[in-house]
Amino acid sequence: MDSKQDILALLRSVADGGVSPEQALSELKTSPFEDLGYAKVDFHRAVRQGAGEVIYGAGKTAGQINGILAAMIRRGSHNIMVTRLDAEKAAQLDGGIPIEYNELARFAVANPAPVHKTGHIVVATGGTSDLAVAEEAALTAETLGNNVSRLYDVGVAGLHRLLANMGELTTARCVVAVAGMEGALASVVGGLVDCPVIAVPTSVGYGANFGGLSALLSMLNSCASGVSVVNIDNGFGAGYLASRINKMEAAIE
Amino acid sequence: MDSKQDILALLRSVADGGVSPEQALSELKTSPFEDLGYAKVDFHRAVRQGAGEVIYGAGKTAGQINGILAAMIRRGSHNIMVTRLDAEKAAQLDGGIPIEYNELARFAVANPAPVHKTGHIVVATGGTSDLAVAEEAALTAETLGNNVSRLYDVGVAGLHRLLANMGELTTARCVVAVAGMEGALASVVGGLVDCPVIAVPTSVGYGANFGGLSALLSMLNSCASGVSVVNIDNGFGAGYLASRINKMEAAIE
Amino acid sequence: MDSKQDILALLRSVADGGVSPEQALSELKTSPFEDLGYAKVDFHRAVRQGAGEVIYGAGKTAGQINGILAAMIRRGSHNIMVTRLDAEKAAQLDGGIPIEYNELARFAVANPAPVHKTGHIVVATGGTSDLAVAEEAALTAETLGNNVSRLYDVGVAGLHRLLANMGELTTARCVVAVAGMEGALASVVGGLVDCPVIAVPTSVGYGANFGGLSALLSMLNSCASGVSVVNIDNGFGAGYLASRINKMEAAIE
Amino acid sequence: MDSKQDILALLRSVADGGVSPEQALSELKTSPFEDLGYAKVDFHRAVRQGAGEVIYGAGKTAGQINGILAAMIRRGSHNIMVTRLDAEKAAQLDGGIPIEYNELARFAVANPAPVHKTGHIVVATGGTSDLAVAEEAALTAETLGNNVSRLYDVGVAGLHRLLANMGELTTARCVVAVAGMEGALASVVGGLVDCPVIAVPTSVGYGANFGGLSALLSMLNSCASGVSVVNIDNGFGAGYLASRINKMEAAIE
Amino acid sequence: MDSKQDILALLRSVADGGVSPEQALSELKTSPFEDLGYAKVDFHRAVRQGAGEVIYGAGKTAGQINGILAAMIRRGSHNIMVTRLDAEKAAQLDGGIPIEYNELARFAVANPAPVHKTGHIVVATGGTSDLAVAEEAALTAETLGNNVSRLYDVGVAGLHRLLANMGELTTARCVVAVAGMEGALASVVGGLVDCPVIAVPTSVGYGANFGGLSALLSMLNSCASGVSVVNIDNGFGAGYLASRINKMEAAIE
Amino acid sequence: MDSKQDILALLRSVADGGVSPEQALSELKTSPFEDLGYAKVDFHRAVRQGAGEVIYGAGKTAGQINGILAAMIRRGSHNIMVTRLDAEKAAQLDGGIPIEYNELARFAVANPAPVHKTGHIVVATGGTSDLAVAEEAALTAETLGNNVSRLYDVGVAGLHRLLANMGELTTARCVVAVAGMEGALASVVGGLVDCPVIAVPTSVGYGANFGGLSALLSMLNSCASGVSVVNIDNGFGAGYLASRINKMEAAIE
Amino acid sequence: MDSKQDILALLRSVADGGVSPEQALSELKTSPFEDLGYAKVDFHRAVRQGAGEVIYGAGKTAGQINGILAAMIRRGSHNIMVTRLDAEKAAQLDGGIPIEYNELARFAVANPAPVHKTGHIVVATGGTSDLAVAEEAALTAETLGNNVSRLYDVGVAGLHRLLANMGELTTARCVVAVAGMEGALASVVGGLVDCPVIAVPTSVGYGANFGGLSALLSMLNSCASGVSVVNIDNGFGAGYLASRINKMEAAIE
Amino acid sequence: MDSKQDILALLRSVADGGVSPEQALSELKTSPFEDLGYAKVDFHRAVRQGAGEVIYGAGKTAGQINGILAAMIRRGSHNIMVTRLDAEKAAQLDGGIPIEYNELARFAVANPAPVHKTGHIVVATGGTSDLAVAEEAALTAETLGNNVSRLYDVGVAGLHRLLANMGELTTARCVVAVAGMEGALASVVGGLVDCPVIAVPTSVGYGANFGGLSALLSMLNSCASGVSVVNIDNGFGAGYLASRINKMEAAIE
Repeated sequence: MDSKQDILALLRSVADGGVSPEQALSELKTSPFEDLGYAKVDFHRAVRQGAGEVIYGAGKTAGQINGILAAMIRRGSHNIMVTRLDAEKAAQLDGGIPIEYNELARFAVANPAPVHKTGHIVVATGGTSDLAVAEEAALTAETLGNNVSRLYDVGVAGLHRLLANMGELTTARCVVAVAGMEGALASVVGGLVDCPVIAVPTSVGYGANFGGLSALLSMLNSCASGVSVVNIDNGFGAGYLASRINKMEAAIE
Repeated sequence: MDSKQDILALLRSVADGGVSPEQALSELKTSPFEDLGYAKVDFHRAVRQGAGEVIYGAGKTAGQINGILAAMIRRGSHNIMVTRLDAEKAAQLDGGIPIEYNELARFAVANPAPVHKTGHIVVATGGTSDLAVAEEAALTAETLGNNVSRLYDVGVAGLHRLLANMGELTTARCVVAVAGMEGALASVVGGLVDCPVIAVPTSVGYGANFGGLSALLSMLNSCASGVSVVNIDNGFGAGYLASRINKMEAAIE
Repeated sequence: MDSKQDILALLRSVADGGVSPEQALSELKTSPFEDLGYAKVDFHRAVRQGAGEVIYGAGKTAGQINGILAAMIRRGSHNIMVTRLDAEKAAQLDGGIPIEYNELARFAVANPAPVHKTGHIVVATGGTSDLAVAEEAALTAETLGNNVSRLYDVGVAGLHRLLANMGELTTARCVVAVAGMEGALASVVGGLVDCPVIAVPTSVGYGANFGGLSALLSMLNSCASGVSVVNIDNGFGAGYLASRINKMEAAIE
Repeated sequence: MDSKQDILALLRSVADGGVSPEQALSELKTSPFEDLGYAKVDFHRAVRQGAGEVIYGAGKTAGQINGILAAMIRRGSHNIMVTRLDAEKAAQLDGGIPIEYNELARFAVANPAPVHKTGHIVVATGGTSDLAVAEEAALTAETLGNNVSRLYDVGVAGLHRLLANMGELTTARCVVAVAGMEGALASVVGGLVDCPVIAVPTSVGYGANFGGLSALLSMLNSCASGVSVVNIDNGFGAGYLASRINKMEAAIE
Repeated sequence: MDSKQDILALLRSVADGGVSPEQALSELKTSPFEDLGYAKVDFHRAVRQGAGEVIYGAGKTAGQINGILAAMIRRGSHNIMVTRLDAEKAAQLDGGIPIEYNELARFAVANPAPVHKTGHIVVATGGTSDLAVAEEAALTAETLGNNVSRLYDVGVAGLHRLLANMGELTTARCVVAVAGMEGALASVVGGLVDCPVIAVPTSVGYGANFGGLSALLSMLNSCASGVSVVNIDNGFGAGYLASRINKMEAAIE
Repeated sequence: MDSKQDILALLRSVADGGVSPEQALSELKTSPFEDLGYAKVDFHRAVRQGAGEVIYGAGKTAGQINGILAAMIRRGSHNIMVTRLDAEKAAQLDGGIPIEYNELARFAVANPAPVHKTGHIVVATGGTSDLAVAEEAALTAETLGNNVSRLYDVGVAGLHRLLANMGELTTARCVVAVAGMEGALASVVGGLVDCPVIAVPTSVGYGANFGGLSALLSMLNSCASGVSVVNIDNGFGAGYLASRINKMEAAIE
Repeated sequence: MDSKQDILALLRSVADGGVSPEQALSELKTSPFEDLGYAKVDFHRAVRQGAGEVIYGAGKTAGQINGILAAMIRRGSHNIMVTRLDAEKAAQLDGGIPIEYNELARFAVANPAPVHKTGHIVVATGGTSDLAVAEEAALTAETLGNNVSRLYDVGVAGLHRLLANMGELTTARCVVAVAGMEGALASVVGGLVDCPVIAVPTSVGYGANFGGLSALLSMLNSCASGVSVVNIDNGFGAGYLASRINKMEAAIE
Repeated sequence: MDSKQDILALLRSVADGGVSPEQALSELKTSPFEDLGYAKVDFHRAVRQGAGEVIYGAGKTAGQINGILAAMIRRGSHNIMVTRLDAEKAAQLDGGIPIEYNELARFAVANPAPVHKTGHIVVATGGTSDLAVAEEAALTAETLGNNVSRLYDVGVAGLHRLLANMGELTTARCVVAVAGMEGALASVVGGLVDCPVIAVPTSVGYGANFGGLSALLSMLNSCASGVSVVNIDNGFGAGYLASRINKMEAAIE
């Protein structure tokens, strides 16, 4: 009931006498979500934003996740993503719900269905330790229907590893650059490609990295153009945004 | 000399005897920039990244800027952007170089030429005080050939001002959300649209905003999907990235 | 012995000869608390501030809490709140003391008695993960005799969930807005209502939220008027203050 | 057009045929503000929130402020507050607009009219250096129709100065505690009174006060109940909130 | 009226009938300060704390300082210290008030009188740039009646400069160690002497010293015993405390 | 071998022929510590600084502590303090070494002997949760031969609890003020007494206290004179310094 | 294939017809690393940088480490360093790979072989608690072929311990100064020697040391020349750099 | 009088009777510096550390600098470096002292004399804005007798500019990498060369660079080995250390 067309149609029914003013008011106020008490499941998001609901698993109990999944599957949802889902909690999910679970990325897809993939997203990492975050990004993008190339362990301290993969990089429609420590990967990649680069700082490192702050600041201050940043360790956010960019249609002149 | 084709062509000339190995080595090492001593002007960037050189004016003298502009115009560049150019320095630029200058945005376009604009970018601000940064973003995007709608002073403390402009928002291919203080605009916009949202925290505010840190953290922690962030007050970076996104072609299946 | 009346009465007894100067001095020095050695239980606070003693459980052993409760109940206290009481410690409390315990909120009411409730406080949260803090606020306010409406999971990334509850919001005498991540809920609510809004940043989130700092700064920098902030995760403080506000009488002209 | 009644009335006109569906849609979209381009003046806020528009002067030119004032006065506004208005800018305001200006508080009231004052708010400061912020709070509250007592230079290093004014404190309906440096005033006052206390940290001090951060953290961590905090130096916000609290009616049982 | 004896005497007069209860109450409430409106001058501090009032000049106008000085001198005060008094403001002080002014230390003594000095305080600095803060400490201590030795430019990067002055150090009753940059002087001195060491971090330095934070943290983390710290650049506080320590009498067994 | 007299005596022996130059050089280089490999036990500190060695237990294994204790006891040390010694490690200490252990303060005295106590130190805390740090301070001071009064749970939110103990406070030669959260106790005490006040911020609290930073900043910014600060939770440092101050002799004129 | 000579030789082969242009292109693109999927092992680093690969153990599973070790040993690598390898993971390494493991330093050398040592590096620590980091530095330097002297527990609070070892210090070609808390060791050592000093802040300490930040800032602000800093607790980085410096040859004039 | 030989010679004279014990004591205490009151000029540093005194100009008046220079030149010093000397102060230096001044680097050499240069140091910068800091490093190194190559504006966003200068880089004995913003230059250079790399973060940039903090953290967290860091903008420190490294002799086996 968000679009202009919906409202206009409703108003026309009121003019027709088909709908009473009181009913119309009620209709205008009906909220497009189901209220579970502890959560308000948003069924219109797929319509409004072109992607299904995602469940942030970290702050929820297995019971709450089960409840939300059940409500969504009742409404016919497929490929429901659950992020930040640790192995222990994953094991407690309702056995009756089909789940594909990736432990490294702490990422699950509930009620999976085949996905048609398009375009080309590259997910690159500075080191082996960034894999968990990178996989969260890659799996998110794949679940949302994007082709993803993984380019792992191409940190700037060994530039030849990155330069040897220029082909992958230059054909990407969007690059997700995942790096901890000094986060320089984003700047170097940003200088090599002409597509949008999404930088994901990771909390990997030690000493004065302050839980990813060093990489975050480094990426925000990138001297390369075309780079933007998501939150520390936010692989999901990067994958989701990369999907939006990769799936863009050409502008109508 | 970055592309595979260029190198292959060169190597074939060596095989042909048309080019000696020593010449080829020299050729391989020739850098695609002009070295002014204090700056290395990068003429290949337009080829490599699809956009002309931009000059960051803040750390340079008027003399240095004049020198870089002259070198670029000799090579035939048009619509050269100069950012962070305060009025005093702008007044010292070489009178012989045609310049369009916007004082609010501290933004100049040197050697301007007509630009064909496509697509639709919305630049929104939380308040009147964010205008300087917003204009830097909007002018950057326009110079790079994008249609831009300005939606100013639509902060979340008066939601109806934002909701009254849903039409502009929902037809945008990319939204640049510029806000200081608590930076909530990015989250609210992010929840309303289905295109990429680029959040620009501004240093506007007082007290515990710490030069824009409050808005920066707020935007990085946005609970809305599809939002990424550029550096505080970085209108140019946002406009540049918005252009990359708006100009995307459809993916080839 | 804080009020002017008390002192005047005492002084009159001295003038009467009913009390000797030395006794009066002693009386003036008598402190209105019981000294348990490790704690000084403040019995006059109810008189002075209109609410009973609350015990901050986090830094105390079960034994110390038992001792304080016993001293208070001996004096006739009811509805003594114990905050930040984890389940393990709660299990160690003296079985002889009647306790109502809420594990999610880590909140107990000792020696409970029926409470008459007045007015209307709304406790709203941005997400499901903020429930523990919100319940601490709600239970505190209810124990202190206030009617509380819970409005959970109405974060700004799905504005319609909040707007669908405008009725609850606009009839509130005070709103407690509990949110982590970017904390935008406080600003949006602040722009919609005309009663005091108490913002409670939570430490919920990850990455650059820095234990709630992002939400805290966001709320402090709120562009909406009528908003003030309590400490991160301080549900008790918000509920206590909301009660003070909700229970205000009309000013005498 | 925010209230249920307004919408219902409109819908009934549609049913009556008095208004066409297309007109109704247009009506539903009409925004209750005047768009000056650089600012959207919000005329409904007085209705929605019970107080007139306030203009944050810091980020605006004298010309912009004049424009906004003129638009508001045309609509009949009185007692329009302009905050953070330095003396230089105040001198550039349109001579035709009646203005009362306080330089210490950088605070102006445009188109002043007599105000009926009720209740009792105390504004207290720790030292002489906090006066500018305290006056901003006091003038805001007075402009909004509240009786204000000023209790200045009663910092905790000389407790007797504070204790000598217990009478003022204990009769207040709301106390605004303004302090820089260690900000202890809020905690001490919070322990002495039973009304809401609004703490305003100021940037007064030197060394490790970090622009008011020391007082801000101190106030957020106050061990006294009933204390909430606004942004550093935010006298306006404190005065505005104090007014909301002071003007509360008794709850209907 | 702070001491037990005063109150007892008063109460005895009430018992005698010499003072009425109402008068006694009034007496008990009489505050030992003069209220200038913008400041409450505290005349009892000398009695209560053994030292005269000091005026913190930074946040006050020359007119306010003149007013406070006049009130104090009327009461017979001598050697009134004014700190953080820049040269411009010093020049605006009332010509009729005798003043000794030290520009480097931004320190004035009003209505000076001869001071009898006792004991031995050493004020040491790491470098030449710390002199302003060191002089504030030294002049404060001298004004309060202490013998002061200055040991300047004895930073730890040239240990022999410090070791060559062991004689001064080992005979001191208190050492004030003033240092910026890495603030190591406090630790080294703390390991060499057996008297209390007061560390004063200064904001001298550049880069990652963050306005004195590096020296502050360094001094707080000193591995030497007997070291405590005052605020950054707080020469006055250090000199005042050094005086308290130097002037201690032997404990009575 | 630090003192002038020692060196002079040695040089005279050289002049006498009683000591050869080579022996004298060796003597001058002999270090006054025993090298255990992992630690250099400093036996001269008692001479140089008037107090025995203290062992910081946190970073050492039980084996290392046993080794250091054995070396010290062989040399005849008594009342050796071991700080930050958790219960588990304490249980692993060599049973042959007599130990008095306080678990709350994580503080042990090895090879205890009767101590003659002098003077008067007050250790005050804001709340019950600060007891561990306070006891570390009190036990340190007692072990070093000082009379200590404990004044616990006298935080500023209930001023009467503090004011009821003015007698203890005003007769102290030094006050150690231990407080977490907003740390206001130091300022309030500093305004009430005329002896040195040593402020100890504690990490007690939650939310934006950042491990004690809020109390630390508050105390550093104290508006009261005569207050200095030691590191967060550094009860030992405060007790040690309080002892130095309490044991001062009168200055020789 | 990094050096000019390699490329020239290849080009000459193309000119000779010995290599086809297409083969040459392929050769130019061949990357000098083995791709294990999760890691790209860099075999040319020894050639390029004069030292073997090191494996950062913290972010890798035992299985991944085994895989990398196996790949390297197949290629003939000896003395492969594995850092940040905790005891549990070390126990899971492939029993078939010869390993020397140091638990304190969490440091392993795989496939060890005799090392010829040259020069002289001193590794000094402020206290016993810094040993783990110091040993990581020392073992790294020894594995890379350097003579190392250990000078432990020579913190600046007991200067004589450091001065007693001037001989070791003044003959060093490079000093690694490891210290936590206030980190003053680096400055004091920097003032005593004329060789490069590498400062390693450690996270040892408590209170306001903020995980090593105090020592880090202190060392960065060192007033001694010739000092540079590596990351907190980065013993490996310091040992590696010390080796580079110690192994320098004399410059050719 | 630092060396063993000096002391032994002195002791032998005492044994001989040529020097009395009292004279020897006096001699042992004579400090190797001239005390100007406000500064202690250290003449032995050249002997002790192999380089002349440098004057940090920022915290000193022109008069103080003149005094120190005069004292040094009297003793025969040449090539005395004065850093952080702004143009205004430079113009106030004593005309009688020969000075070479570089305004960009705010760097002066007093009493200049020809310098013999050896070895090869590269000073590289990320951008044009880093030139001032880079020149301070380069001039320091040149004054100390090192050959310096300048490689300016080779930031990582245009890698080809850096790779085109591999020849300079790979023949350097030490590289100084100067960069602001994200500071990635240090990591990339660190991965390309096998000599020590000294990273200098600069305060160049805007937004969340926090005065150079972003580059500092990035460089400290560099994933490349062989990199160490000096303070923000500390060109002098980098040039001085680079000189120490470049001038190293080969180790004696």
